[in-house]
Amino acid sequence: MPLTPSCPIPLSDYPTVQLAHGGGGKLMQQLIGKMFRSVFGNELLDAEHDGAVFPMDSARMAFTTDSYVVHPLIFPGGDIGSLAVNGTVNDLAMCGARPLYLSCGFILEEGLPMETLWQIVQSMGAAAEQAGVKIVTGDTKVVDKGKGDGLFINTAGVGRVDHDLDISPASVVPGDVILLNGDLGRHGTAIMASREGLEFETSIESDCAPLHEPVHAMLEAGLPLHCLRDLTRGGLTSALVEIAETAAVHIHVDKNDVPVREEVRGACELLGLDPFYVANEGRMIAVVAETDADQALECMRKTQPDARRIGAVSKDPAGRVTVSSEIGATRILDMLSGEQLPRIC
Amino acid sequence: MPLTPSCPIPLSDYPTVQLAHGGGGKLMQQLIGKMFRSVFGNELLDAEHDGAVFPMDSARMAFTTDSYVVHPLIFPGGDIGSLAVNGTVNDLAMCGARPLYLSCGFILEEGLPMETLWQIVQSMGAAAEQAGVKIVTGDTKVVDKGKGDGLFINTAGVGRVDHDLDISPASVVPGDVILLNGDLGRHGTAIMASREGLEFETSIESDCAPLHEPVHAMLEAGLPLHCLRDLTRGGLTSALVEIAETAAVHIHVDKNDVPVREEVRGACELLGLDPFYVANEGRMIAVVAETDADQALECMRKTQPDARRIGAVSKDPAGRVTVSSEIGATRILDMLSGEQLPRIC
Repeated sequence: MPLTPSCPIPLSDYPTVQLAHGGGGKLMQQLIGKMFRSVFGNELLDAEHDGAVFPMDSARMAFTTDSYVVHPLIFPGGDIGSLAVNGTVNDLAMCGARPLYLSCGFILEEGLPMETLWQIVQSMGAAAEQAGVKIVTGDTKVVDKGKGDGLFINTAGVGRVDHDLDISPASVVPGDVILLNGDLGRHGTAIMASREGLEFETSIESDCAPLHEPVHAMLEAGLPLHCLRDLTRGGLTSALVEIAETAAVHIHVDKNDVPVREEVRGACELLGLDPFYVANEGRMIAVVAETDADQALECMRKTQPDARRIGAVSKDPAGRVTVSSEIGATRILDMLSGEQLPRIC
Repeated sequence: MPLTPSCPIPLSDYPTVQLAHGGGGKLMQQLIGKMFRSVFGNELLDAEHDGAVFPMDSARMAFTTDSYVVHPLIFPGGDIGSLAVNGTVNDLAMCGARPLYLSCGFILEEGLPMETLWQIVQSMGAAAEQAGVKIVTGDTKVVDKGKGDGLFINTAGVGRVDHDLDISPASVVPGDVILLNGDLGRHGTAIMASREGLEFETSIESDCAPLHEPVHAMLEAGLPLHCLRDLTRGGLTSALVEIAETAAVHIHVDKNDVPVREEVRGACELLGLDPFYVANEGRMIAVVAETDADQALECMRKTQPDARRIGAVSKDPAGRVTVSSEIGATRILDMLSGEQLPRIC
């Protein structure tokens, strides 16, 4: 008789961890849902948000974490340091929180050039200043050469929630609209292009940026936001599918309304990628009631000039995301099972 | 003219990161002090505590992080999962905080056996339950085979501070006494022995355990604690040197009062280690006024039967730690410059 319950991931299917288990698709969902949540499960974790929101005396707080393993460490438009700050700032913002404090855990590989570390540390400092957060606690570990990959960074973040809204996929209802803050696909294609050594006529830079400002603008205007999601691993599609499944609603997006830069479209064709699935690091969707859409867009456009409406929420078919193409045909969007772009963040 | 200031670690001394930069000694202090703090510096980070303590409306909160890279993943007396929970619980406890919520960031290496991950996840769940904390938010990344080492875990923790004490090295004053909760050196020697494949007559198990209970017992008794420190990387000596230097006091310890099990002493001799420098994962010191020492020991002994007084704080020579040996001779204890035991936690 085994002392512990048997592994909830069928070992016949996956005896070992695959790259796809970190890809933001179905396999990662399975690992988190069946294994991690079965052991750690509690009402905060089960909320499946970008972070946990809980009361602390009279305040409400948000708490989130992300590890960053992006390869290469430095890429057009950013580096692992700015990514590690902006990514966690954005997870707090997506909880509707004001980002306040970050922790920083470095896992350094023996032999990492000290100059590289210095460049990344300065980049983190600049990103923290831009986002108005303080790095208040940290940890440094070094692993032997060949047991890491230069540098991994974990940041956790604490923020303050100054409203009583329940900003989550479950709050999305038919009649809502989907707002997007800008063009898709730059982060993922910039990383892939630099990894493959590709040069495009116009160089593509990551969209890595903090997203606390558009969120605060909407909250300060008193808008009852239903859901916020940044479009990282799995891209726009994964965010929409997760919302449609959780809220049991239908989401329809018009492809003509979703901006993708010409050079990104070209790079995606060359690399065999779909911009709807590519990771972004400065892109988000906000889901609000139709009646609040214009005011929400006005708030977002103060810092996100390209913000626009890209889709709408209806009742049926529940749990499904559809997209109408350039030529008017409609197809179903599903989450990828695996890994489109390993180590993109 | 360089766009950024030059690297504050002299590249002629250290052009690349060394294992010793993560060893808890002088080199790590230099990296953190000269590089990280020069960029991230703020009053919370500069406090150099195990975690940051800050107000949140009417409450005071503590926030901390640690990454865990211990090798091997599973060792006598624990594994990387229980370590990742207890280590962060203990950092919160050392801030005088009640540990509440943890985040968990996994960096998995492609090919990690799913059964190993499952065992470690269950161990984390059990440790969290024992310590009364909830894992409320998480992140999973997978790196390609050969770019990690099975599994790294980062946990960050949030706790609540229910008192107005300033528990920190700076609060230590002449006339204080040093209390220790048990025998030294088990975690480090257990790891090293299992790594070297050594078998001792009595097997040595890690002391990995949560330390929130002795801290709460002392706080609930209303004792004005001056300083708390868990004895991880760098062991008892590093903790004492840090306190002596920060508070500009002299700390004297009597070696006869510091318990080290016979099998640990033997293993240390065989491995060339000094138990005063070896990492522990369930050991702490509390620094209190002489007049509070007996009551503090009484509180600690509710869960730590071996707690005892091991030393005293005086004025001169300021910044120095001394130890009297078994035969009565006195010598100076200094921090190691480098790495006694790489990847011990």
